[in-house]
Parts: sequence; C-alpha cells; structure tokens
Amino acid sequence: MKITHCRVTPIAFRDPPLLNVQGVHQPWALRSVLELETDTGLVGLGESYGDKDVLEDLGEAREAILGLDPFETNVLRQRLFDHLAVTPGTRGHKALEKTFAALEVAMLDLQGQMLGKPVHEILGGALREKVPYSAYLFYKFARHKDDPYAPDPWGEVLTPEQMVGETRQMIDEYGFTSIKLKGGVFEPELEIETLRQLHGAFPTHPLRIDPNQGWDVGTSIRAGRALEGTLEYLEDPTPTLEGMATVAKAVSVPLATNMVVTSFAHFPEAIRLGSVQVILSDHHYWGGLRATQTLARLCQTFGLGLSMHSNSHLGISLAAMTHVAATIPNLTYACDTHYPWQDDEVIAGGKLNFDKGSLTISDKPGLGVTLDYNALENLHQNYLNCDISERNDELEMQKYQPAWQAKLPRFLEEIVG
Amino acid sequence: MKITHCRVTPIAFRDPPLLNVQGVHQPWALRSVLELETDTGLVGLGESYGDKDVLEDLGEAREAILGLDPFETNVLRQRLFDHLAVTPGTRGHKALEKTFAALEVAMLDLQGQMLGKPVHEILGGALREKVPYSAYLFYKFARHKDDPYAPDPWGEVLTPEQMVGETRQMIDEYGFTSIKLKGGVFEPELEIETLRQLHGAFPTHPLRIDPNQGWDVGTSIRAGRALEGTLEYLEDPTPTLEGMATVAKAVSVPLATNMVVTSFAHFPEAIRLGSVQVILSDHHYWGGLRATQTLARLCQTFGLGLSMHSNSHLGISLAAMTHVAATIPNLTYACDTHYPWQDDEVIAGGKLNFDKGSLTISDKPGLGVTLDYNALENLHQNYLNCDISERNDELEMQKYQPAWQAKLPRFLEEIVG
Repeated sequence: MKITHCRVTPIAFRDPPLLNVQGVHQPWALRSVLELETDTGLVGLGESYGDKDVLEDLGEAREAILGLDPFETNVLRQRLFDHLAVTPGTRGHKALEKTFAALEVAMLDLQGQMLGKPVHEILGGALREKVPYSAYLFYKFARHKDDPYAPDPWGEVLTPEQMVGETRQMIDEYGFTSIKLKGGVFEPELEIETLRQLHGAFPTHPLRIDPNQGWDVGTSIRAGRALEGTLEYLEDPTPTLEGMATVAKAVSVPLATNMVVTSFAHFPEAIRLGSVQVILSDHHYWGGLRATQTLARLCQTFGLGLSMHSNSHLGISLAAMTHVAATIPNLTYACDTHYPWQDDEVIAGGKLNFDKGSLTISDKPGLGVTLDYNALENLHQNYLNCDISERNDELEMQKYQPAWQAKLPRFLEEIVG
Repeated sequence: MKITHCRVTPIAFRDPPLLNVQGVHQPWALRSVLELETDTGLVGLGESYGDKDVLEDLGEAREAILGLDPFETNVLRQRLFDHLAVTPGTRGHKALEKTFAALEVAMLDLQGQMLGKPVHEILGGALREKVPYSAYLFYKFARHKDDPYAPDPWGEVLTPEQMVGETRQMIDEYGFTSIKLKGGVFEPELEIETLRQLHGAFPTHPLRIDPNQGWDVGTSIRAGRALEGTLEYLEDPTPTLEGMATVAKAVSVPLATNMVVTSFAHFPEAIRLGSVQVILSDHHYWGGLRATQTLARLCQTFGLGLSMHSNSHLGISLAAMTHVAATIPNLTYACDTHYPWQDDEVIAGGKLNFDKGSLTISDKPGLGVTLDYNALENLHQNYLNCDISERNDELEMQKYQPAWQAKLPRFLEEIVG
C-alpha cells in the first residue's frame, strides 16, 4: 500500500474572545486538516496548526510522503529531516516535529484502517477505557469586537465570581473533575482570589493555573507559596529554565511546563537545573503519537510527571489525543482541552461527547473519525474569508485597548533597574 | 486475532572456550526459544536467555500473554509489571524487561506476518539496507576440558600474535570492518600490546576493547591514555558509575557501557556524573525492540553515542537485532555479535550470512526466520543432557585452574590498604 495523495485544507472556526497573557483570541481560530489517501482508497486524517508557516511546511512535505507505505513513519521523519531541517531558510527542527506529527497521526489512522484496529491498539493497546480531561477555564469578554457572529453562551467572565459561574456551567455540562485556569491576564492577586473561590466552590476538584510566563520570579514565588495546598501544579509561571528553577526551589507546588521544555533538546538543561516537575505533552509539536509515548518514558526515567497540553482544536486532534493518552501508563493527570470552547466541528456526526469529564476510547478502526466534507468546505470558506493567516492575540486585544502590548513577564514584583 | 499458545523451549548449543574476566565459556551456551501461536495458526518467534530464572519468568508470563492480540504489547507490559514485579519474591524490574522483551519480539514477528511486512517496517521503516557488525574477538583455549565434542577450528589464542591470526581468520570469512576485543583476561600490558598489533595489522578498522570491569580506576586511566588514538571506544573498563566517571574525566577515549547503564533507571545518575559517552543497547534486557528505539532517542537527547551489545545467541536474536538496528538513525557504530562463534543454529536454512561484515535486512514478513524443528529438538536434547542450568564461567575456569576466582576489578594499579 502506498500513499498517493496528500491534501492539506486550511480551515477557520469560531473561537470565543478568551483572554490570556498574549491578548485575546481572535474570532477565528486557524487549523489545518490533513488527508492522506492510499492507492487502495483509504483516507487517513490528521489535524494541525493552521498558521501560514505550518501550511507551507505541510505543503513542502508532500514530496516526502508520497509513495511511502503508511508504516514507514521512520523513513518519513528522516526524509523530512533531510528536506526541511537542512534546507537553508526553512524553519528547522521545531517545524520538522510539527510537520511530522501531523503526517504521523494520519499514517497511524491508515495503519488502523488497514488492520481494522483502533489507533490505541496500533500504539500497543489501551491501559484505560476512559481518558479524563480537565475543565479549561478562561477569563473572557462577552462578545468579539464588531460582533462577527452571534455571541457565545458563556458571557462575560472578568471576576472571581463570574469564573465560579463559568466553571459551574462547564462542569455541569461536561462533568470534568479537574480544573485548569488560564491566568496571566489580571493582577496576580485577583487570579489567586479566583483560585481560592474555585477551591471553595469545588473542593474536591484538583486545580491548576497557567499564567503563561506572565509573572516574574518574585511574583511566581509569592503566588506559589500563597497557593500551596490549593494547586495540583503551577504551570509556566515565569519565563526561562533558570527562572523556573529558581521558583521550583522556593515553592512546594510542582511546576509544570509547555513553554520551557517543548522538545527533547530542552531536557538535559531542564534536568540539570531542576526547572520543572511536570511536562505537558502535546503530540502536535512533540513529534507525534509515538514520540509522545517516548516523552512519557523519558519523564518516567527522570521522575517527572506527565500531563497533556491543548490549543484550540477540533475532533481529529481530540481523537488522536485520546488514543495516545489511553496507552501511557504514567499520564496521571487529566488532559487539557480547549474543545468545549468550540462549537464548530469538521468530523462526521458532530462533536465528540464527554461522559463525567472523560472520553471513552473508540473501538473503530484507525482514529475512528471521518470527515464531514460539507463542514470542511464551510470551515475552509471561513479561512478564505477571515483575513487571518497567523494567530495574533495582541493585535486583537488592541481593538479593545489600542495601547495594549503583550510582554513576558507582565506582572513584576521587583522593579529591575 | 488472539495468542492462544506460548511455548518456551530451553536449548543448549556448542560454545568455544572463550576467555573473559569471569572465567571461560562452558561447552554449552543456554538459550530459550519462544513460540507464540495465534488462533489463526501463525507462529511468532522470540529468543532469550536460557538460565533457570529467565525460564521460570517466561513460564510465569504465560498467563499474561494468552488471549492478547499481537498488537497489545503495552497491555502485556502492564500485566507483567503487575504480575512479576509486584509479586513478592520475584525478580523485579530487570526480570520484567527481559521477559517482556522476549515476548514483544515474538509479537512483532506476528504483527509482521499478519501484515506481510518485515519487522523493520512495523518499527517505522528501515533507514539502511545493511546493518554492519563487528568482529568480536576473544582470547581462548584450544579445546574444552575433557573434549565434550570435537575442538573448534579457531585453535588457541593466548598471545597478541595469535589474536592477529584469529582476527584475520574472522575478517577473511565475514568481512567485518570493525574490531572488538574481549579483554579483562590477561595483564593489561598484554592486552594493550594486542590492541597495538591489531591496529598495526588492520589500521583502517575501528578498534574497541571490553575489559568487563576488570581494571581498577588507575589501570583504566593508564590504559585509556596509552590507547588514545587507537580506540574507537573503551567499554566498561572499571566498575560503578562513579569509577567510570573518574576515568571519563581523565581520558579522551569515549567510554562505553553495557554494565553500569543497563536500564532506563540508571540514566539520571549516569548523566549527572558524566560516566559514559556511549550506551550499548541490547533489546534482550532493555525491554524489546521499541524500547531500544526509545533508548536511542534518549541517547540522542543527551548527546550519547549508541552501539549494540551481544551475548552468545542464534539466528532469531540476530534477525531481531538487525531489524531494529536498521530503524535507528543514531546507531552509528557497528553492532556486536557473538554469532561467528556458534556453529549450531535453530532457524530453517541454517546460519544467516554476512556480506562484507554486514547483514542485509530481510524483506520477508515478520522477523523473516522460521524454526528448524529437528534442530530445535536436538538443541533441546543438548539442554536436557548438558547438566547446566545457569551460566557459570568461573566454575568452568576452575576445571583448568582449581584456585581461580572471578573478581572485579581483577587488575589493580593501586593497592588499597
């Protein structure tokens, strides 16, 4: 069996005005849908970022993938390495991992379809029937600037009390049993108060906050200490491996990251410095599902915890995340997902359903999802019409506050002279 | 498809009187041949150690493997972990990795047969058509004590000149382009002189020596410095991660190991101390072929080289080694193999053939080897008759020198008071 076609369709879907340290989500989130077709007529699916550079890299990868058997992931990686990473002017290693990841998922989908086995079985078999996800909470505006479409049902969330309301709404609907708050938006005191109110309202739900490097070291230490006993982990409070190491030494709450350790190359220094205790995996940039399993073994080897990161995504990504999560013995935290914030979908049958905060693993061949081609066409039309080719939360925030600028860290305890 | 039968057949095959730091090889080397049979009549093969404890563990693993699909390697590992590692009195983690490895290879053989694909393709695809092996040289006696069978054709090798002869004979026959000398047998000066003569006779062949921790730190440093410019790497000169780290700081020759880093659990301390620069993989105890790929990624991550270790083995193991070696981008050294020392074989068609020191990867389904059941029965009869249930090179050496005792390190530069 050979892969004979590789189609990459950029799409854009509705995304609420979610606040974060970089600004606010634009009304359209970009994504790419990947279809690998074989000479036997099978179609394997992948989903990745939709930014311009990723689309370019996926386009350039076409010649590397065509003619390969769906099992030849290793060969593809080597070809991409030769092609993308070595060609002057290309975006190097991280681009390679992102490109490979998107293609590898589609190849695993094909492998599963060939064998009549779900991807989790191709990956060695599921160790759990259900994969728990966390309630991923954002402060948010009530509506996008200029109302490009009808406002979302979540309303305005700018205070601790409103956040407790958002959380209750999400937990009532999805049944999540862990909570993650996207921070780095407001003064740390307000976010700490938000967490305290969440802890009061949901005392048995493990809590996390992710300020996205919005705090300096001093703020991180103060906040970390204030939240000891409240937090399951503190995610990326401050920039750099060195900054995180300083915070890690000063607070007892475990530090997690998807910002300072984002590839295997970051491991040696992170281990040497003791910067983090939990790694957030994400197959989209760690290099695919098998690389995620390798990352898990690496975390186990070095005594680090493992959780899972998410960007805005649709059902193909969620299916892939769930398959790999089911196979990892030491994925002991509920996975992050933005999925409840999306009301668009590209897979047939509509959105995947959570039961008590978990997704039940699929027993269908491959990823177990197929495309709704009408939806794909609609979302592609959104992409063509939305006038966005790269995510830019700062630019979007300037529509509300023209002088606003993203900066890391945003909140400083000490003024550095 | 389900695995319905698991047969483990202990075998014993002729092994020459090869010298090493532990003594001398017994006339019979022990091994186990594993057959996993499915409800569709496929038979997957594995080969592992034949010592008593491994046979017991493989026997105990039967209940864990029966009923599994050949793709459920992950599930098997978890079951073995629950069963073997947690049961009081069992041999724990290392036993788990050995047992799992043997079964995983047979499951991968089945996967390949199901798909009509060679194991290297199941593992992601071959990055090379040929896998180079090294000439694995031993000092040796001319014949076993009491001549249990006709002497081997290699004769006595106890001097540098005889070793050059052995090497020439092996390279003429197999075409190897790298050389590894098993050391720790004689005074280091004689082994250094042997390496110098080998370097003179084969100046373009990279050279290694493995004293199997036979030297103390002082001897290792002296020998390592004397051999700078001659050695590709120096393997396990001295015991312990700390000892190796001291040697590593003092000599420029890279240090390799298959003794101080033999599982993922040893990595953190080895990295912290800087004990080694090259890891010798061995799927038989690292936990199988996919774990070997993971080990490779770990070595790449931490900037370590990767080579491959070997014990006495037959063709099933050699096939498995070759499949995985073909898939690893950073396996940049020729692999070790004892294979030329064995004149018995258990696979149909007899021994695998080297071409210019390399094995060409197989394009047959699975491992690409099948059993010669007559040979299996004969080798099993050897096992029943040989009166050996655990390898013991020291006991064998005492037949020649009754007062001889194995000790590590054997050769001391400094007398410790």
